[in-house]
Amino acid sequence: MSQRQLSLNAFILPTGHHIAAWRRTDVPEHANHDIKKYIRIAQSAEAAKFDAVFVSDSVAAASGNGGSSLEELSLTARGTRLEPFTLLAALAAVTERIGLIGTVSTSYNEPYHLARKFASLDWISRGRAGWNLVTSSAPAEALNFNQDQLPPHEERYQRAEEFVDVVQGLWDSWEDDAFVRDKASGQFFDPGKLHVLNHKGRHFQVRGPLNVARPPQGYPVLVQAGSSEPGREIAARTAEAIFTAHQTLESAQAFYADVKGRLARYGRRPEELKILPGIFPVVGSTEEEAQARYRGLQELIDPRVGVNLLSGLIGADLSGYDLDGPLPELAATNQNKSRQALLLDLARREQLSIRELYLRIAGARGHWTVVGTPAQIADRIQQWFEHGAADGFNVLAPWLPGGLDEFIAQVVPELRRRGLFREEYSGATLREHFGLARPENRYVLQRQQDVAV
Amino acid sequence: MSQRQLSLNAFILPTGHHIAAWRRTDVPEHANHDIKKYIRIAQSAEAAKFDAVFVSDSVAAASGNGGSSLEELSLTARGTRLEPFTLLAALAAVTERIGLIGTVSTSYNEPYHLARKFASLDWISRGRAGWNLVTSSAPAEALNFNQDQLPPHEERYQRAEEFVDVVQGLWDSWEDDAFVRDKASGQFFDPGKLHVLNHKGRHFQVRGPLNVARPPQGYPVLVQAGSSEPGREIAARTAEAIFTAHQTLESAQAFYADVKGRLARYGRRPEELKILPGIFPVVGSTEEEAQARYRGLQELIDPRVGVNLLSGLIGADLSGYDLDGPLPELAATNQNKSRQALLLDLARREQLSIRELYLRIAGARGHWTVVGTPAQIADRIQQWFEHGAADGFNVLAPWLPGGLDEFIAQVVPELRRRGLFREEYSGATLREHFGLARPENRYVLQRQQDVAV
Repeated sequence: MSQRQLSLNAFILPTGHHIAAWRRTDVPEHANHDIKKYIRIAQSAEAAKFDAVFVSDSVAAASGNGGSSLEELSLTARGTRLEPFTLLAALAAVTERIGLIGTVSTSYNEPYHLARKFASLDWISRGRAGWNLVTSSAPAEALNFNQDQLPPHEERYQRAEEFVDVVQGLWDSWEDDAFVRDKASGQFFDPGKLHVLNHKGRHFQVRGPLNVARPPQGYPVLVQAGSSEPGREIAARTAEAIFTAHQTLESAQAFYADVKGRLARYGRRPEELKILPGIFPVVGSTEEEAQARYRGLQELIDPRVGVNLLSGLIGADLSGYDLDGPLPELAATNQNKSRQALLLDLARREQLSIRELYLRIAGARGHWTVVGTPAQIADRIQQWFEHGAADGFNVLAPWLPGGLDEFIAQVVPELRRRGLFREEYSGATLREHFGLARPENRYVLQRQQDVAV
Repeated sequence: MSQRQLSLNAFILPTGHHIAAWRRTDVPEHANHDIKKYIRIAQSAEAAKFDAVFVSDSVAAASGNGGSSLEELSLTARGTRLEPFTLLAALAAVTERIGLIGTVSTSYNEPYHLARKFASLDWISRGRAGWNLVTSSAPAEALNFNQDQLPPHEERYQRAEEFVDVVQGLWDSWEDDAFVRDKASGQFFDPGKLHVLNHKGRHFQVRGPLNVARPPQGYPVLVQAGSSEPGREIAARTAEAIFTAHQTLESAQAFYADVKGRLARYGRRPEELKILPGIFPVVGSTEEEAQARYRGLQELIDPRVGVNLLSGLIGADLSGYDLDGPLPELAATNQNKSRQALLLDLARREQLSIRELYLRIAGARGHWTVVGTPAQIADRIQQWFEHGAADGFNVLAPWLPGGLDEFIAQVVPELRRRGLFREEYSGATLREHFGLARPENRYVLQRQQDVAV
């Protein structure tokens, strides 16, 4: 198949992406901590030849934004989840080909820990690890890590940039052929092929070397999710895939053109960065059935949950306002700037009440909601894919595992009939699924350049 | 079987415990990063009904002690390994009953991260996780975490004590029956059964709650490895198992009596803390064969490796001294105090040269070396077990997987014939294997006490 192919990742939240999904009768009760359920989801996605499973994260039980409280949290299934490294390593042991992308924040972490955990995951999975880099944007996260509040947005991104540099430097500690393992002479590795990083920067001082060999992929695939100005810039410089949120084709096209256009200044080609918006698909055998299923889900949302969720996304407490009145005037906050702008714009454009707005975002939380028949959903995917809006999608199943099963059973075959999605894996690593080159070790490159000069 | 039973853990280092093990022809070349090999070891230990596998750790490639250098490191297989959480989570997915103990340092970590990773591992394994708490004692580790040198020994232990308190507090965030998951009413959990820790201490400020439900074991089993004075005290207060190093029955008995004697002051009974010395067994069908195998291993040690290893353990550079002369006079250092005293004492007692001393410790690195037939090894184990020196052992296989296979095939049946070791698992969790009670949630206890008053 020489035609350009879609990438598809299965996004895993415990009960699915819709805030009220846990209340569906077909969603397992013990979904949050049941490894057997996660294994079943990953194996289904692998049988369907998805590029990867994608696990989100947060280092707090509640967001701590806006009107969030334990009472409101108690009406959702979102307070608890398995930690990404342990979850993905377990999945690595019982899958063979599917990629394993985990979200890890740079905000309250150390590059040495993160570099070795991802290197280990890449070894355990034989080259299937991906890191979704985020900075922590929930005030509740700061409170779990010796701080009273979040660092400013810009500060977080500066730290993230240095963090990535250190992590990639550590991954290059050992050249790929450093280990000679000569049992007769007693030489285990060639010391000329081990490199001490000696990083001394503004946020980090890390000597190295890493105590894990260079990962099978060279570097695990670097994914990013920030769509703010500094988020786009760090993505253009370092990311290999972007997880982004757009409600309309036009918005996705503008983002796609903007980010791809930034690559050249870092000496990169457009195909070196995959742009993967979220899609929240609700499938039905007819359009009416799909709409009815979507309505059924929406009706499960408790108004307190809806307002709380909206408050968290928008960065302001909306619990005192009339649900059926308009969104109040809000000052721009320092957190979640791009998400806030997206929501304010949506409310203004369509003149939505607070209730209408939370209903709009509670399901897909800012992502693209597509409700229809398999052919209708495939049409929309094809349109975005072929008109400069996406290289593939993160599939945010409304509920799990059923919502993903239906997408796999009904939409994926439709995409295959159109020649848009693989029938079989052609590669073994996540990097190969995404069509990304394996990065050469910086010290080997340096040596090659020295010889060339 | 009502007789008191031995606990046995299989200690996993990539190529085995002996420093030159990797040079044996039967040790796999790619041992360090090959998950299939680790799975095979864990499954063998589980088939033999071991209590747990036990993974050591270090957050640096080289110790950075004494005469350590990259050249010397390159003569060993010790520079790289898989990270414990990712390794153990992968093993959890392909085993059913065996415990999974991982070493994690409190020195460069955050309690929130550690609490949630162990809680996740406990969920993924359905109650089989154990945490071997250490403080970092290698200067090279400090250099990977923004520091120029290690904090003083006492400071490290004070931090460790507070760290454990925070972690256990976070594990109690959710009461065991907090989750009602009432799909009809929309109530997912009972907010009265979720507790916010609000810890504010000298080293940490952590609000909580944890974003993982209370672990199946209540708390994952807490193991400790320090044998210094503050190490013994923190163990007596909080540990449920101790991994310790003793060369003689007398030394092990003295340690056993000392630590068990400290428990009462914390309101604990002797059986609430298992004392598990390391044993480094070299098995042969005759004593001569066992001795020949041990000599064969010892002869594989490069003198540069031996001196470097000894320097690291003793905290002083010995590379300039005559190998066949005595150990020089050494000032006590701040690091590894108990290990240093053990070695100086051994050298003095037996008038060993530097070479003799490194040969003595290079194999078992301070642990108890037992070379003999299966019956002879079982005799010694039985002696320690029945004479107040041990509740069980961490089996440090000289090489892997072969050395463990032989212990399982030859020594374990001998222990079973004597009624000292289980034929089948009677419990499902690590806590049950060790015969330890499941701790009640502190808030439930508090409520019970309030009612009683």
